[in-house]
Amino acid sequence: MSAVTGANPLRDAADRRLPRIAGPSGLVIFGVTGDLSRKKLMPAVYDLANRGLLPPGFSLIGFARREWENEDFAQEVHEAVKQHARTPFREEVWQQLIQGMRFVQGDFDSDDAFEQLKSTIEELDKAQGTGGNFAFYLSVPPKFFPLVVQQLKKHGLADQKNGAWRRAVIEKPFGHDLESAKELNEVVHEVFPPEAVFRIDHYLGKETVQNILALRFANTLFEPIWNRSYVDHVQITMAEDIGIGGRAGYYDGIGAARDVIQNHLLQLLALTAMEEPASFDADALAAEKTKVLGAVKLPKDLAKSTVRGQYAAGWQGGEKAVGYLEEDGIDPQSKTDTYAAIKLEIDNRRWAGVPFYLRTGKRLGRRVTEIAVVFQRAPHSPFDQTATEELGQNALVIRVQPDEGVTMRFGSKVPGTQMEVRDVSMDFAYGESFTESSPEAYERLILDVLLGDSNLFPRVEEVELSWKILDPIERFWDGHGKPAQYQSGTWGPVEADEMLARDGRSWRRP
Amino acid sequence: MSAVTGANPLRDAADRRLPRIAGPSGLVIFGVTGDLSRKKLMPAVYDLANRGLLPPGFSLIGFARREWENEDFAQEVHEAVKQHARTPFREEVWQQLIQGMRFVQGDFDSDDAFEQLKSTIEELDKAQGTGGNFAFYLSVPPKFFPLVVQQLKKHGLADQKNGAWRRAVIEKPFGHDLESAKELNEVVHEVFPPEAVFRIDHYLGKETVQNILALRFANTLFEPIWNRSYVDHVQITMAEDIGIGGRAGYYDGIGAARDVIQNHLLQLLALTAMEEPASFDADALAAEKTKVLGAVKLPKDLAKSTVRGQYAAGWQGGEKAVGYLEEDGIDPQSKTDTYAAIKLEIDNRRWAGVPFYLRTGKRLGRRVTEIAVVFQRAPHSPFDQTATEELGQNALVIRVQPDEGVTMRFGSKVPGTQMEVRDVSMDFAYGESFTESSPEAYERLILDVLLGDSNLFPRVEEVELSWKILDPIERFWDGHGKPAQYQSGTWGPVEADEMLARDGRSWRRP
Repeated sequence: MSAVTGANPLRDAADRRLPRIAGPSGLVIFGVTGDLSRKKLMPAVYDLANRGLLPPGFSLIGFARREWENEDFAQEVHEAVKQHARTPFREEVWQQLIQGMRFVQGDFDSDDAFEQLKSTIEELDKAQGTGGNFAFYLSVPPKFFPLVVQQLKKHGLADQKNGAWRRAVIEKPFGHDLESAKELNEVVHEVFPPEAVFRIDHYLGKETVQNILALRFANTLFEPIWNRSYVDHVQITMAEDIGIGGRAGYYDGIGAARDVIQNHLLQLLALTAMEEPASFDADALAAEKTKVLGAVKLPKDLAKSTVRGQYAAGWQGGEKAVGYLEEDGIDPQSKTDTYAAIKLEIDNRRWAGVPFYLRTGKRLGRRVTEIAVVFQRAPHSPFDQTATEELGQNALVIRVQPDEGVTMRFGSKVPGTQMEVRDVSMDFAYGESFTESSPEAYERLILDVLLGDSNLFPRVEEVELSWKILDPIERFWDGHGKPAQYQSGTWGPVEADEMLARDGRSWRRP
Repeated sequence: MSAVTGANPLRDAADRRLPRIAGPSGLVIFGVTGDLSRKKLMPAVYDLANRGLLPPGFSLIGFARREWENEDFAQEVHEAVKQHARTPFREEVWQQLIQGMRFVQGDFDSDDAFEQLKSTIEELDKAQGTGGNFAFYLSVPPKFFPLVVQQLKKHGLADQKNGAWRRAVIEKPFGHDLESAKELNEVVHEVFPPEAVFRIDHYLGKETVQNILALRFANTLFEPIWNRSYVDHVQITMAEDIGIGGRAGYYDGIGAARDVIQNHLLQLLALTAMEEPASFDADALAAEKTKVLGAVKLPKDLAKSTVRGQYAAGWQGGEKAVGYLEEDGIDPQSKTDTYAAIKLEIDNRRWAGVPFYLRTGKRLGRRVTEIAVVFQRAPHSPFDQTATEELGQNALVIRVQPDEGVTMRFGSKVPGTQMEVRDVSMDFAYGESFTESSPEAYERLILDVLLGDSNLFPRVEEVELSWKILDPIERFWDGHGKPAQYQSGTWGPVEADEMLARDGRSWRRP
């Protein structure tokens, strides 16, 4: 046991300095046979154990319909860990973890199954010392959310008694519009108090996203220019090169704006644009994010400030790609957006008049997520005009993924016997600067749930404000024509380029 | 001839776009047998010709005591070019250049020699079409400056007649204190009008130094934080690893402060601290440099804000190095400074209260010249104190030489499951960003002389203001003890560290 909790070579520097180790607890995963569980959740639990950040008696309960015994489940976790864990496999860690591993078989509407879950938890409290502290991870289709939380309530599993905690972890989508989000939130909050509900936006668990806060507020350099006096506009991009893959059932009718902008991109916008919080406790942080999301304003003319697109056939990575409407399981009449670009403004003293352009899409040029803060040109140039004609605008780019890091673009003199200024860039790359490898987002987020630290989880107010921003756009789209087609492997429909061109700007080619 | 002036692969991008090509002209070098001439001036003339930036009939006259014929001189230039030129040797360029090459033999007080120089110039005007336009480069010990310019006057060589120009180029030192500088300036200006006098500070010809202006004024990013509200202090360093070499006769009695701070470092200070000029014509630039140098203030207590040092024996590059007082030709009682560090303040709205620390020295840890703008810590940190305890101050470092470029140091989150912020840096390197190789400082400066562009040459006012800053320090040192000893290969005397420690700061280890 000491091998796991003692001096541990896999703890990163920060962990060594001031370890955040979860207290006695366990995790129940509903929908444990799914992809997310196998690829992300199980490996993250193992990685946390391997780094010594879980309590010795940590317990993991899988819940699903499949006819598994405990051993089958353990075998499944074992394979998932071997295949997807970030840290090396260590038998002694595994042997300890397996002590607390259980499987509960049943449908979500089966009272027997939930009673069995209850007795399993009680058994683990005794055998493993989990102290009654359990988190319930709902890795299930959204339509089952209400059922599962009601079952938890019905069987007394949500009760926080004798000082023990019970928490619910919910995966997006948190509704598909403001109304359904409110309904969902009501159902969940009838069972769990707000502070016990953790909505996963895995983007917030990414190092580069957390680094937005460090960049802005631990430094002197950036904050003075982080406002309408110096910023021309901001571009937030999440581009995927893949299509919908096997997710037709989930994706059709949802689309890019609901799938990505409503959560990931609006959260990135909030972190980029918010005021400095008084501290980094969850309340202070949520207050600032809520404030800035509440100040987001839609332009009046949605026809000119939003674009939706659908990928047509094309080429990607040297292979022929079919169009969205030809994908298996997609209605050939579908109007679902696989690309969405919107322009937002923020009605406050810091940002008034500075457009925030958000875009996301599938089958684009390459996979990249970045936030680009593009600065105004210098208000006056003492140089000859010819000296600066090849100079673009200064920009600070936070590269969220891949090639995590920060790039600053600015003008520098071109070597030569006269003054000519051209764009160059300075670069900071995580990979080169730190020997520590970055924990997976899910490692961070599961640990936070067990610690009760809700810093990186959007609150109900943020979710509802985000839908409030998106709803009018979706309604407008519903009433106006069809998505613009764009060739797979390109950077989206020409309409999106035109949208920025009308403002005298252009999208970055990241 | 078209091979030289036509499309030329050696012209850099800027030259191609808007070539600055010198008109009909010639250059006379006094002291042409010296080191500077052989290593820098002759190669620079060839490189300019090779890049097609000199007129076809460009002429080069060497003047010295040595008993050379034109052919000997040409042979000497040939060797210097082969050894030291930056661009490849091309026979056709050389053959053209040699047409205008002459040697005049004589002492500086010989009237015959100056008459011969006069007739040589007249001959070249006819044969080469130099149009009477000649620059006189005084690459001679400073004690000969007055004699040479007076001889030029006496023999009518300084007269700017019939629209032709005559210019004087002077190498430092421009005096050894304010009084001698004024005397020298008077003598020179009796003969040449101010706009015809070009004082060479070769640092100003360096790409990285010119880039200070591009960085500051072609961008939006830097100027907003370039003031007392955000800058904590500025460090300007020119460190040499070598000792005095064979320069004992020149160096002893002059010292580091006069040799480096008075010219190079105060010019770097002026470029770093000055306000934006209305344009980059020479007058506007000189006005701003003069203004900021005029605002420089010495701290009251020079004992606490200046340090001079002398290198003692030690190790450098794995070899034993002797102390300054043991060097050949140095008086063992010499009080000459081989290290000098001074603290200056600038009494204006932008910089009041921001110390500028200047230091230079021989036999230091390594050869490096840099300007480090060190920013204040963030005024408030929303992070836990433990999160930022390994975080230093933000800094922007302009690396003048070697490894020319710009580095920005700032805090970034350390990968891990908690917030810890540590210093990282972004880097821009000339070598990686531009395919163009940088012209030597002397190429740029000689071309500027021929073009009559005095942008990069300190004016008489700047020189005198610089001495006005340095004189009280030198006087104070003369009256107070001896230089502190420091071991060769270290970063200077402990007194210099103490000087910054008293301000709660420390020198960078560049």
